[in-house]
Amino acid sequence: MKKMVIASTSTLHGGAYLDYLLPRLSTHFEGVKTLVFLPFARPGGISHDAYTAKVQEAFAKIGIEVVGLHTFANPNQAVREAEALFTGGGNTFQLVSQLYALNLWASLREALEQGTPYLGCSAGSNITGISMQTTNDMPIVYPPSFETLGAIPFNLNPHYLDPDPSSTHMGETRETRIQEFHAYNSIPVLGLREGSWLEVEGDSIRLMGPLTARWFVAQEAPVELESGTTWPRKDASKT
Amino acid sequence: MKKMVIASTSTLHGGAYLDYLLPRLSTHFEGVKTLVFLPFARPGGISHDAYTAKVQEAFAKIGIEVVGLHTFANPNQAVREAEALFTGGGNTFQLVSQLYALNLWASLREALEQGTPYLGCSAGSNITGISMQTTNDMPIVYPPSFETLGAIPFNLNPHYLDPDPSSTHMGETRETRIQEFHAYNSIPVLGLREGSWLEVEGDSIRLMGPLTARWFVAQEAPVELESGTTWPRKDASKT
Repeated sequence: MKKMVIASTSTLHGGAYLDYLLPRLSTHFEGVKTLVFLPFARPGGISHDAYTAKVQEAFAKIGIEVVGLHTFANPNQAVREAEALFTGGGNTFQLVSQLYALNLWASLREALEQGTPYLGCSAGSNITGISMQTTNDMPIVYPPSFETLGAIPFNLNPHYLDPDPSSTHMGETRETRIQEFHAYNSIPVLGLREGSWLEVEGDSIRLMGPLTARWFVAQEAPVELESGTTWPRKDASKT
Repeated sequence: MKKMVIASTSTLHGGAYLDYLLPRLSTHFEGVKTLVFLPFARPGGISHDAYTAKVQEAFAKIGIEVVGLHTFANPNQAVREAEALFTGGGNTFQLVSQLYALNLWASLREALEQGTPYLGCSAGSNITGISMQTTNDMPIVYPPSFETLGAIPFNLNPHYLDPDPSSTHMGETRETRIQEFHAYNSIPVLGLREGSWLEVEGDSIRLMGPLTARWFVAQEAPVELESGTTWPRKDASKT
């Protein structure tokens, strides 16, 4: 039975890495001694070792050891045998390319199904959706496919940003980009603002954190969902 | 001999579509009666016909007729025989996918080499670089490759945005994204702000418009280039 925390961001403005989530993570990862960390998204091009060290520092605060998946001779076995899993943020194209290169998708799906507690932040959240096609990231590497875990029945747009009415910038707003996605795709998209996260228990999903989230269904007007909203949605037959 | 105008954006804040470029375009396209428009980037999912109508309206102001490439039975022939070409902005992934689907790359390169005057805006500028990997767009469709025209010896980041020091948003800045690109790639990148454009004459390239542009070379600190800067650069052996 899936047990996942899927967060928009690792870090809130003015806060330290993972700080706002740690109270929740100490129960989410209760009883876990060692967590396996997937450092492949490499924010800013940081090395796997340096990224893992940053995560070790954060999890030391709640008494959990962290081992980088890149240090295992057999990463598939490491994923299947992990007590807990965390995929950090960074570049989603790089992350997805590495997961394909290491052929890790089946092992990850198996671990999630068997109830290994999972944390994803940003890029590590993107990969829990049906595809990575609503990432904000730059296509700095070419992955063999955009298909991702499908652990939730929709796509995510982490770091969701509302249009800035004072902006003079002519690049597309986030909402316009998601609507362009829906010109070619029917997968619903949840715009998850920084400070929001999803909790997954089996097939049940709940929106958590202090904020509303923006829900985009193809050919429909987007709607704001209150914190506490659950999927499957009772008021909609869509998902 | 190549003759190209490669613009960051089609539209400046508060202005009408293409207005700020029209004085330059009336000489760039001097003598041209009919321009062939590539509408494939479909901003906001607009139809090819509706997008072409918008472009027709703008070019009517300088006495040029516009025909959408999607209306030709043989688009490769239409590109090779065009008096002038314009690729509009929108989603670069969709544009590049369509150019691969229609197998248009060789015809486009041939037309550019033989001197057919070209205008690109935004996504239509991205495709003039070596690859589309420094686009800002969302990967809403999966193209068979990220490789693009290579009509200039570097990549572009149109709609380049400086970091906002007052922002509390934790998503990556544009500069961080381009530096992540350089963790895996050595192609230089020009961040072209809205209001800037490049003019290409043969192998010579010049930065135009009122603004500086930001130049990123892998493993080097980014620098600001003055309007009027030319490539090949005299002060650098890199490109």
